[in-house]
Amino acid sequence: MSTAWTSRYALRTKGITSSQIRELLKVTQRPGMISFGGGLPAPEVFPVQRFEEACHKVLTEKAAQALQYGATEGYEPLRELIANNMSRYGIKAKVENVLITSGSQQALDLIGRLFINRGDRVLVEAPTYLGALQAFNIYGAEYESVPVDNDGLRTDLLERPLRSGPKFMYVLPNFQNPAGTTLSEGRRHQLVLLADRYGIPIVEDDPYGQLRYEGEHLPSLVVLDRENLRRDNGYSIGNVIYLSTFSKTLAPGLRLGWIVAPPDVIGKLAQLKQGADLHTSTFNQLVAYEVARDGFIDKHVKLIRQVYGERRNVMLLALEEFFPATVTWTHPQGGLFLWVTLPEGLDMKAVFNSALEQNVAFVPGDCFYADDGPGSDGREGSHHMRLNFSNAAPEQIREGIRRLATAVKSHLSAAPKKELSLQL
Amino acid sequence: MSTAWTSRYALRTKGITSSQIRELLKVTQRPGMISFGGGLPAPEVFPVQRFEEACHKVLTEKAAQALQYGATEGYEPLRELIANNMSRYGIKAKVENVLITSGSQQALDLIGRLFINRGDRVLVEAPTYLGALQAFNIYGAEYESVPVDNDGLRTDLLERPLRSGPKFMYVLPNFQNPAGTTLSEGRRHQLVLLADRYGIPIVEDDPYGQLRYEGEHLPSLVVLDRENLRRDNGYSIGNVIYLSTFSKTLAPGLRLGWIVAPPDVIGKLAQLKQGADLHTSTFNQLVAYEVARDGFIDKHVKLIRQVYGERRNVMLLALEEFFPATVTWTHPQGGLFLWVTLPEGLDMKAVFNSALEQNVAFVPGDCFYADDGPGSDGREGSHHMRLNFSNAAPEQIREGIRRLATAVKSHLSAAPKKELSLQL
Repeated sequence: MSTAWTSRYALRTKGITSSQIRELLKVTQRPGMISFGGGLPAPEVFPVQRFEEACHKVLTEKAAQALQYGATEGYEPLRELIANNMSRYGIKAKVENVLITSGSQQALDLIGRLFINRGDRVLVEAPTYLGALQAFNIYGAEYESVPVDNDGLRTDLLERPLRSGPKFMYVLPNFQNPAGTTLSEGRRHQLVLLADRYGIPIVEDDPYGQLRYEGEHLPSLVVLDRENLRRDNGYSIGNVIYLSTFSKTLAPGLRLGWIVAPPDVIGKLAQLKQGADLHTSTFNQLVAYEVARDGFIDKHVKLIRQVYGERRNVMLLALEEFFPATVTWTHPQGGLFLWVTLPEGLDMKAVFNSALEQNVAFVPGDCFYADDGPGSDGREGSHHMRLNFSNAAPEQIREGIRRLATAVKSHLSAAPKKELSLQL
Repeated sequence: MSTAWTSRYALRTKGITSSQIRELLKVTQRPGMISFGGGLPAPEVFPVQRFEEACHKVLTEKAAQALQYGATEGYEPLRELIANNMSRYGIKAKVENVLITSGSQQALDLIGRLFINRGDRVLVEAPTYLGALQAFNIYGAEYESVPVDNDGLRTDLLERPLRSGPKFMYVLPNFQNPAGTTLSEGRRHQLVLLADRYGIPIVEDDPYGQLRYEGEHLPSLVVLDRENLRRDNGYSIGNVIYLSTFSKTLAPGLRLGWIVAPPDVIGKLAQLKQGADLHTSTFNQLVAYEVARDGFIDKHVKLIRQVYGERRNVMLLALEEFFPATVTWTHPQGGLFLWVTLPEGLDMKAVFNSALEQNVAFVPGDCFYADDGPGSDGREGSHHMRLNFSNAAPEQIREGIRRLATAVKSHLSAAPKKELSLQL
């Protein structure tokens, strides 16, 4: 039965990304497992009481609206709340600039629908968010990858790939998933200028922007882009579409994200969204509005910063304590992830299996690279690990890193030197 | 600004269906308007109290799960409840046959993703559900339309289009949207046999199946298909994918639908769904489970049948009372819609505008026909109206039909005879 339909009815197989991570994350549900694998928020900080009050209010006062079909663009008071909240970060959006999506993942899917025709190239970071690749693959995207270093995307390497005319650039400037790095202010300016010079739009994905644990907030690309617009230095229209979500600040189980774009783009995306799921759950939108309103979300984000900031610190200290000097890692100023680089030549599949034996899980780095085609380096991430620090409790984080170090060390001692492995 | 991005960045315009109905439905929100336009359930029957108890229970006992990321396939107890409920209608599904979707609209989108490559043909009814066309258009579908009469799809006209090899057939056997007709039992058997003979799968869309107000339940295509499988008369695998939803039995604001298919198809659809929105709201799935469980949904469906059945009767009587003999309409045994046929040669745009002047709205029939390409008859529906009878209260329904008759009659008297209009 397993492939009967696929072969009989010539179902799509191309563009369906392997379910490697989904399978992997199933393993991590084993009892006793400490997982750094997923990107899960800490359930301890979900504002459950506030959710209960919000549900009660919505069902008492607005049930007929909350349980009914709604507008594809979203619940207007929620769109307005989002626009107002973003203005604190300098993002000048009005209601008509905001489309509510069924999580940020749907935002990526709609972007793919709008931009990508089969064979179009998308410029992505290396490494980049796996879910974006999954969303774009289905529309037949090809990729140009540009590497990330400790200051984020290497903007000095952008001109050549931009000249080849990608459809858009997909960038995560803040606390990047998976690398945990942040795009420096200088590079942000450079990126926005290059986008305009080559006429290539930027899709700025910012799910973690508010979750900063040290340093100062850096201006979003969409803000810098607008500033350039105002200076009238050759810009005709804005070049940046901005994405964010309530998944990391309220709860991912709501599936509520949003897109900020010029009204004509929002109009087209809404038409595409109508074909995809008519609209996002009205009930969840009304509940989220009642939860977030009156400044609650700002107070709540402060709590999350404190909890996740501590967990990040615990993980950084444990890495320092347990890992050998040949292993390095990024120092994320916010977000949920850090990126560990092991010495080259390690068999990451074997390291991963050893980790599972130690009851600790991570996501191997090779999941986060776009396939640039036959001429590319391919799985460049083969000696990296993505570690999540938001989900496990502090004492678990320390124990998990200890176990992981044990697993890694068992392979380090056995690892052949690079020269040696080339002769094999 | 309005097309700046579209032209500058060569955004997709093909496959985006006109927003005619969305614009139309905005007009119907005018005060005093009686709308037969949308397909909205009656908010008076939403089980609000039960929802409140369910939210309380979920947030008290399962908040950490309800607000967290969840499995792409859906919340397992809900999948199991759906499988059990469907078995009452003879549909033998197990948990692994059920994928939860973000409303039935997403089910249609995922079907489009899985089956349709640009230029593939889909066999649809004429008229058919507009949302399905919107979902399939984006993947570049072309269409073969086969007409519907009072016994549903004309299966006697299927052989020629089936020989031309469409990718699948999209059929609404029960209380069809928009026509309100039901596929007869004899035609159901014929359809299932033809699907197997030509190796063309059937997508059976059944959002209203439980909302029957008269007559006996007829077996679903997926049930007849399985029976044939058991008789082993040449079938190798099942040919039917079945879709349904909680939108008409609980509340559309939840955006909860489902797909029933063989496990290998469910696996592929889940991978596609992961790229589309990761998963459907965990919170809504847990709440819907608590609302529906312990037989509540069966009791609730009985209430809905009673309320909508009465509204249908009121509309049928009012049509009889107010409309002239040259106008005909279908007699739906269930569902939400009926289909009115006006004399040919009427200018439906003018009729529609007169109706709006009378403060009553409907959806013009031409929205419900697939474009079969330049050689086709095109907008065959130009003298039809779809009327919804679930949303307005009975006294509004009678008044609305009276107004609508006034609008129609003003054009009937002025309508040129067919012969005359041909000379113009």
